[in-house]
Formats: sequence, structure tokens, C-alpha cells
Amino acid sequence: MSNAPTANPIAPNPIAVEVTRGRDPADAYVESRHRAACAVVAADGTLVHGWGDVGTPVFPRSAIKPIQALPLLESGAAEAFNMSAAEISLSCASHNSEDRHVETVTAALARAGLTPDDLECGPQVSSNKEVLAERLYAGVQGSPLRNNCSGKHMGFLLTARHLGEETRGYVRRDHPVQQRLFQVISEMCGVDVTGLPEGIDGCSIPCLALPLSNLALGMARLADPRGLGEVREAAAKKIIRSIAAEPFMIAGTGRFCTAANAAFKSRAIVKTGAEGVMMSAVPELGLGVALKIDDGDRDSRANGVAMAAVLRFLGVLDDGAAAEMAGQLEIPVRDLNGARVGSARAHAQWPSG
Amino acid sequence: MSNAPTANPIAPNPIAVEVTRGRDPADAYVESRHRAACAVVAADGTLVHGWGDVGTPVFPRSAIKPIQALPLLESGAAEAFNMSAAEISLSCASHNSEDRHVETVTAALARAGLTPDDLECGPQVSSNKEVLAERLYAGVQGSPLRNNCSGKHMGFLLTARHLGEETRGYVRRDHPVQQRLFQVISEMCGVDVTGLPEGIDGCSIPCLALPLSNLALGMARLADPRGLGEVREAAAKKIIRSIAAEPFMIAGTGRFCTAANAAFKSRAIVKTGAEGVMMSAVPELGLGVALKIDDGDRDSRANGVAMAAVLRFLGVLDDGAAAEMAGQLEIPVRDLNGARVGSARAHAQWPSG
Repeated sequence: MSNAPTANPIAPNPIAVEVTRGRDPADAYVESRHRAACAVVAADGTLVHGWGDVGTPVFPRSAIKPIQALPLLESGAAEAFNMSAAEISLSCASHNSEDRHVETVTAALARAGLTPDDLECGPQVSSNKEVLAERLYAGVQGSPLRNNCSGKHMGFLLTARHLGEETRGYVRRDHPVQQRLFQVISEMCGVDVTGLPEGIDGCSIPCLALPLSNLALGMARLADPRGLGEVREAAAKKIIRSIAAEPFMIAGTGRFCTAANAAFKSRAIVKTGAEGVMMSAVPELGLGVALKIDDGDRDSRANGVAMAAVLRFLGVLDDGAAAEMAGQLEIPVRDLNGARVGSARAHAQWPSG
Repeated sequence: MSNAPTANPIAPNPIAVEVTRGRDPADAYVESRHRAACAVVAADGTLVHGWGDVGTPVFPRSAIKPIQALPLLESGAAEAFNMSAAEISLSCASHNSEDRHVETVTAALARAGLTPDDLECGPQVSSNKEVLAERLYAGVQGSPLRNNCSGKHMGFLLTARHLGEETRGYVRRDHPVQQRLFQVISEMCGVDVTGLPEGIDGCSIPCLALPLSNLALGMARLADPRGLGEVREAAAKKIIRSIAAEPFMIAGTGRFCTAANAAFKSRAIVKTGAEGVMMSAVPELGLGVALKIDDGDRDSRANGVAMAAVLRFLGVLDDGAAAEMAGQLEIPVRDLNGARVGSARAHAQWPSG
């Protein structure tokens, strides 16, 4: 596989989300459009649905965190450090850096004799606009503890500590922590990682680009881990249960992942990733879902809306769940006086194109 | 023309900007893609170049501010209030809300016996991430004065005051200020505004969607105003001169518009708009350019890069200008430790597709 920039793809991905503007909601005109591709895959590898290009590798970014949490469970570290469901959910999180997130990371690190200074993810105040404003008004400075990935890094550190590995340099490609992640991604997603496009993630760890169909397979196996061995099966189930039980920990106030994971009540879990990725594991159907908004969806107005439409199509998002997460199915656009002047909503033909 | 949401367009717009991620710059893989359409039009209405769909109306948002400033000059208000080039540039601005922007708006309002309380644009702290963080740390609260559109609104207020109109309610559709804007857009862009899609802009004034070809025509006539009558010709020239002379006022520190307007030295002016719009008036060639990133380009990493490539194609962005605005031609992507891990750059086949 070549890492060279691709030419304009011949077949463009379908439009998944439209953003409207109008004098009133009834008079809305489409101002902007987000294209996307999405794969729905069963645990046996069957591509159940594929919309758009599901074969070209994309970086899953933080959406793959539930899979990256497997070594924390499988190594015995989670048990040894007596980790709660909240802490396991947090180890899969892109969190808002709200007090409970920060305090929980700090406490879990302390139980392993570690401190926030051991985190190598880089400083952040909050990835969430509202929390950021609050924190800046309060004079809070950026710190690795407040990095939206600090829960994942806490999990990395605890795994390394439990296995007696040097924790310093755990973000480096050749550290056992990262090598285990490559291995678990290879096994869960059914790929040979050699030759996959590789980059550096926002939190400084190496990241791999995989076809959406392989990412969806990884989530399908997380949803239906039968045949993956006793240890992995138990780990996968615990990760799903923990996210479902502690939806606040995986994101925070106002976030799609928190609202959706609360509404689905373990029928499905969802996880966002930067640059427009959203993935889901659906135990109820034994399916995995992976989608990416082509353009990167830089203010995350499209990836949740697009995933909600896919989960509604699959029958997972029923009327009850839709009512619980109503604020996430269509994202209002407001003027600076606060008036609603449009919205981001799923395209009438999505999913399908 | 129907305001109903459109179906997936048959012909997708070309990819204008690619965003890469890699282990190092030489190993970059394309992570996200921004599609765009662009029209280049001469003052006589000839479509010189059209890439993608230049016929479907799009909201120009703030990119049309230089045209919206015409009534301020044509009414005699700018002269009556002795407005400087800095103030005229600011009346076309989407500014960062830096001290000089805020002080200049306040002073200009005061000369007309008005105060920041007369601004109806809605509160903001700053539209710029860096300035926002600084201001929040300093405890600055949102205010209409700090709204990135406050310079334009100052121009609206001064025009209304000069013409003896009630200033209260100047953002409403039926106020003479807004009716004049509809009229000047109609004349400059060669459109009948009746039946155009209409919305509410971020600063609460009504906004119209026009085909990119008509928006480019408006900018071409601003660049080459011969035949528009003495008053309009003088006004158009003064707007171009003022933006070129005071590039800081139209945007601010670190911004594409400030860097580009400084580098082009009145050979061209550029103006950004929300949701991925960028427009340019090119007096040197008697051309107007209007482009829109389909997806809305929510962190403005694509519209400047795309416009720079178009202006390079047209010969306006020469090596000297490119050197002066080097930081704007390719936008680095960084991890949270500050390392460069990718970039947003023009697609090798843009402009053309």
C-alpha cells in the first residue's frame, strides 16, 4: 500500500449530514454538506452494509479507544489495581476534563504509585468549548491531566506498571505498550499492520489507518467476542458494560457519546474520534459500525448525527433512545444573539446515498 | 428557486484541500479532504474559470462585507464622520477583537454620538482561538463590541445616523440599512434578490444566498468599478485601498486575510466568510473570485489555502507574496505536545479538479 496522497477518488462518498440556514426552520436552505463513508460488519467479517468507500484506510483516532483498552483488562492490570467501571470507561474516553474526569485519573494513577507528571499526552485545558471557557475564566492552565486522552494514557501507564515495564517513553512506537496496541488492533480488526499508513495521534502515540470495514470488524468482535478466547471475551464484555454503566466518564456534559451511551443502555456503545470518525459496537445485533466524515468535521456537528441515523436504520436507536438523546440528533446553528437560525441534520438519503 | 434541501448533487465538487497525517512530513497520508467550488469572473460578467458547481446559491456570509461597505461610502457617511482607512478596513472586517479593533470601533461610534450599546450584533469574546484564550484568562466577558462583525455594524450605524434614520432595529430586514444592502448586492452581483434563499447571519442580519458566479461578479465590479457611476467607482476604489493599507484591521494577528492583504499590496484584496467562503477582488486583472468549501470548513484551515492556490494559478500570488504569507499556504497540524504531525495543503489538481 502506498502512503502517497491519493488523487480525487472517482466515486465520491454520499452526503450524510446537511447544515441549513434560514429565516425560520420551515424555510431552511442547505448551506454546507458533509460527505461520509460507513461500514457495518458482523463478527464473522461479513460486510452487512457499506455506504461510500469503506476500503481506503482512515485513521480511527480516538474512536478505537475501546479496543485499545483491551490490554489493560487482558494483562490483569485492571483487576490488580481494582479498577472500577468508571475508571475503565474513562480509559476509553475523550473526556471534557470536567472535575470528575480529572480527579478519577489522578486517583487511579496514585493507586499505581504514579502521578500526572508521568502522562506523556501533552497539555490541554479542555477539548470542550463550554468547559474550556469556564476553565480559562478560572485561570486553569493546560496540563496533561486535562488532555482529553488522559484516561487512555492512565490505562497505558497502569498496564506498563502492572507488567513491570519502564513507564517512561510509553508513547514511543517501540515501547511494549504501543507494540501491544498494534497487536490487539491487528487481531481484532483482522489486518496485517505492516505497511498500513501510520501517523502520530493528537496525544503523541503512533496511530494506524485501517479500512472502515476492518475498523467495523474490530467493533463487531468487541460486541460479540465469542471465539476470541476466555480472557479476551471477558475483557471485551467488561469494556462494553463499563462504558454503558458510566457514560459520563467517556465524554462529559453535553456530549454525543455520553448521551448516546446512556440512552442505549448497553444495547450499543459509541465512541467518537477526531477528524469526523465515529464507531459503535452493537452487542444486541453482533455488529460493528465505523464511519468517517470525509472533511474531518472539525466542530463535531456531523459524526454523531450521522451515526445516530445509521443506528436508527439498524433499529438500535428506537423511539425511546431518540427521546432520551433528542438534543444530539439535530444540532442547532445559532446566531450570536442566541436565536436558532439553522441546524445540522442527517441527509434524507443517509444512510445509503 | 426552491428553498427545499437539495438531493445529493450529481456532480460532486473537486477536492481543493487535503489534510495529512504521518510519522514525518515525507510520510504523510491524506486523512481528510475538503471539496470546493470556485468562480473567477470578469467585470463584464464573463465566467473566466469555474471549478465545481458555481450556479447553486451559497451564503457568502462575511466574505461579502467589502460590498456591504459601499453604502457607508456612497451615502457620504464615511466622509461626514471623517473615517480613516483603518476604520473603513474595519467596517469590512471579521476581526479578532484585539485591542486596536475594539478601540477603533468604540472611537468611531463615539464620533457619531453612538456607544457600543447601540450594536445589535450579539455578544462574543473573540472568534480567534488564541485571542479568546488570552481574553478569557483576563476575565473578559462577551460583548457586541468584541463580536467579530462589530466593525461592519459600526459602519451600518454610522450610515443610518448620517442619513437621519432611527438606528434602533437596524438589523431587521425592513430597516433601510438592510434594504440598501439588498439593493447594493443586487446591483453589484447582477441578481434579482427576490426569491433568493434567505437566512439569518451569525450577527443577526438577513443574508442572501447567491451563485458563486454572481458573488465573483460582485467582487470583479469592486475590483474594476468603471461604468458604475462616479460615486460608486470612488467608493469601490476607497474600499480596496483601505483594506490594502490597513490589513490588520480586516482580521488580525495570525489570520489569512491580514497576511494576504498585506502581501498583495492592493494587487488583490481577500475576505473570508463563515462556513468556508473566501472571496477576492483583483484590480490588477479586473477579476473577482468566490469560493466555498462544501463542508463549511469549521476551523478555517481550508478556505485560505484554497484561495491562495487559485490566486497563484491566476498569477497574483507570486513568489514574493508567497514568501510574505508562507505560514498561510499550508497549515500545520500539531499534536498536543506541539510536534508537527501533518498539514492542510492544496490538492495537486486544485484549481481545476
